[in-house]
Amino acid sequence: MIAEIIAAGSEMLTPHRQDTNSLYLTSRLNELGVTVAFKTIVGDNLQHLTNAARIALQRADIVIFSGGLGPTEDDLTREAVAAALNLKLRQDSTILESLRKRFAARGITMTANNSKQADLVFGATVLPNANGSAPGQYLDTTYWQQHGPSLHRIVILLPGPPKELKPMFDEQCRPLLAAALPPFALARRQLRMALIPESQVDARTAPIYKQYPDVETTILAGHAEIQLHFVCVRPTLAEAQARVDELSERIEAELDDAIFSSSGESLEEVVLLHLGMRHLTLAAAESCSGGLLAERLTAVPGSSRYFLGGAVVYSDHLKTIFADVPESMIATHGPVSEPVARALAEGIRQRTGASLGVAITGIAGPTPGTGPDAEKPLGLVYLALADGVQTVVKEVNISGDRDRVRLWASQHALEMIRRHML
Amino acid sequence: MIAEIIAAGSEMLTPHRQDTNSLYLTSRLNELGVTVAFKTIVGDNLQHLTNAARIALQRADIVIFSGGLGPTEDDLTREAVAAALNLKLRQDSTILESLRKRFAARGITMTANNSKQADLVFGATVLPNANGSAPGQYLDTTYWQQHGPSLHRIVILLPGPPKELKPMFDEQCRPLLAAALPPFALARRQLRMALIPESQVDARTAPIYKQYPDVETTILAGHAEIQLHFVCVRPTLAEAQARVDELSERIEAELDDAIFSSSGESLEEVVLLHLGMRHLTLAAAESCSGGLLAERLTAVPGSSRYFLGGAVVYSDHLKTIFADVPESMIATHGPVSEPVARALAEGIRQRTGASLGVAITGIAGPTPGTGPDAEKPLGLVYLALADGVQTVVKEVNISGDRDRVRLWASQHALEMIRRHML
Repeated sequence: MIAEIIAAGSEMLTPHRQDTNSLYLTSRLNELGVTVAFKTIVGDNLQHLTNAARIALQRADIVIFSGGLGPTEDDLTREAVAAALNLKLRQDSTILESLRKRFAARGITMTANNSKQADLVFGATVLPNANGSAPGQYLDTTYWQQHGPSLHRIVILLPGPPKELKPMFDEQCRPLLAAALPPFALARRQLRMALIPESQVDARTAPIYKQYPDVETTILAGHAEIQLHFVCVRPTLAEAQARVDELSERIEAELDDAIFSSSGESLEEVVLLHLGMRHLTLAAAESCSGGLLAERLTAVPGSSRYFLGGAVVYSDHLKTIFADVPESMIATHGPVSEPVARALAEGIRQRTGASLGVAITGIAGPTPGTGPDAEKPLGLVYLALADGVQTVVKEVNISGDRDRVRLWASQHALEMIRRHML
Repeated sequence: MIAEIIAAGSEMLTPHRQDTNSLYLTSRLNELGVTVAFKTIVGDNLQHLTNAARIALQRADIVIFSGGLGPTEDDLTREAVAAALNLKLRQDSTILESLRKRFAARGITMTANNSKQADLVFGATVLPNANGSAPGQYLDTTYWQQHGPSLHRIVILLPGPPKELKPMFDEQCRPLLAAALPPFALARRQLRMALIPESQVDARTAPIYKQYPDVETTILAGHAEIQLHFVCVRPTLAEAQARVDELSERIEAELDDAIFSSSGESLEEVVLLHLGMRHLTLAAAESCSGGLLAERLTAVPGSSRYFLGGAVVYSDHLKTIFADVPESMIATHGPVSEPVARALAEGIRQRTGASLGVAITGIAGPTPGTGPDAEKPLGLVYLALADGVQTVVKEVNISGDRDRVRLWASQHALEMIRRHML
């Protein structure tokens, strides 16, 4: 079964807006055994949209439209689908009534253009919209080609806003599609790892995953992280899950502690989980990462139980006043140095009373350091972790621009904390 | 003139990857007077790609392909374009030679499959690739339809990786297109503002921008910011720029100091510029935003001259030890309170010796506060700014989830600092 997703809306043909619904829909369709073979983005133009609908009806079993269901003149998906299928639109009195009620509940009189939203393609099932005014539509129908055989097609019209489209698809389209399509079971698993090159992951895992041709393995790299995705399709979920789990376990054994998560958690979530399990608290002193590490940790709900906070010691003076780094040490070695990293980690730990103190100091660029740091290369970063017994310091060289150096520095720090607790 | 962009690559039909080249290409095409009317995403399948090429050749004057120019079996764009246009491929000996040299320079023997990259669609101009192995191709040609008149078409084949595609388009395609298309001048301008509702921006500016039907006005909302984009097309750039500038100035007069930037700077860049002009320094004490404000400021290169750093006072104890907030004040009023925000701003200013101290304390959720904060609503945030003479405190209620509360809290803080310096 192949599908085409058509996103309708002139704003998605500008440099500013992109269709993102299709990523979500693709993930859901894949779970039903449907492959997305085409995606089309078309503007609010009846002729363009009607032609795009005809092309899609010729080449895909399932055609899903997102957008163009609102009340304005630019909302043309209903008209285009009806024209492409040679079907009429009929005004549905139940929808019209519920639209009127919706407006009345807000104390607004419904303007005439809103009644467009009650137009149903002949034969369509209404998909009520709990989160907006425009209902969706679902058609299990026949496409009578002008030249060529008639084709069995499923056509779905969904509203454009993601918060309307997603629940409508999940709650209403999914069961309808599952009933219409052959039974299908898909299992997934995902392994995540940081600070290991993609080529190395592939070299070490390819000999294993190639033994599982029935499991689709995808390696994704980005945001200082590598993800391995496994997908398997079998007649039953138990069989599919068994294959995915077997492959995943063999790869976990190969990559061992490079893997920080096998059930979806982010690196910061894993670090917080480990802190929680060991009843430890953490504080951070950040120079070049400027608060990024703290920001990432505090983005996780509940992080306040294990992450106390810390200091953004961007200037030299703040390194001294918030983490007790001696001025003379900074003057001698430069702020980007092994001793300063060590002193920062130990200082922030002592000051805050946290179990663990972590520190990041480096040259994020684009301008070089000053004083003793003037000759040090861009991307040089020192990380330190103090636990009261010992302090570990790590020197790394991170390539790339300022954003990349900061992101990777925060990733190194998180990974250092995680490995410390293993 | 209308264009279609076809992105070739099965990975863009998964839930994980998206075509982003088209946003860049759209922006560049618009500057040449070309409207993008269709975007198609198609997998690495010769038949699908050839049919997509034929459809595009029927409906668009300019057809641009991205991706599918590499050496593997999956790279099928050359073959599909040749088939759609009924043209042959010919191997170009100059490209072949330069491919061989490229491999030799890296000490690698070129494998046979790489020679595919020397296949040119008959009549195409080669677009050398300075950043990768696959050259692009440019065709000014005639599409002989099976039924219907012959059509004049420009067809461009570009490699998929953005760092290869972008310079190739800018340096080679743009001049070719500019020479082939009617002369065209486009002027742009952009106004940015924070913390003002989109509906209010539209209500106040629509009476003005509607008087300029020759200027395309777009309102974009997102990331706690509103952007107004103006685009005007005229025979000469001077005329187009004059229209855009006139409209922009009238809207600047209407929205006045709500606008933080009229030449592209971000809010954090504007704040740093103002600090620099006034020779002021800033330090921050952040509770619920957890370092996000510091992270945003330090993401700007050169920020270290005006932003000293500060403290992430996530726990109550850190509010006391890093910003001298009395424990009794926290116990009485709760950490999310007007007095604590004030004390944090004043404390961080005094501790660090900065000219300005800014503080953020609030309830980001999803769990409520504790102690005196237990009854306070999620999204309640106090912001404070101390300059040594006076301290201003602001109470806001931010709707939405944890991420949104944190982002808007940091935006309120930046806007508070900016307005203080006006």
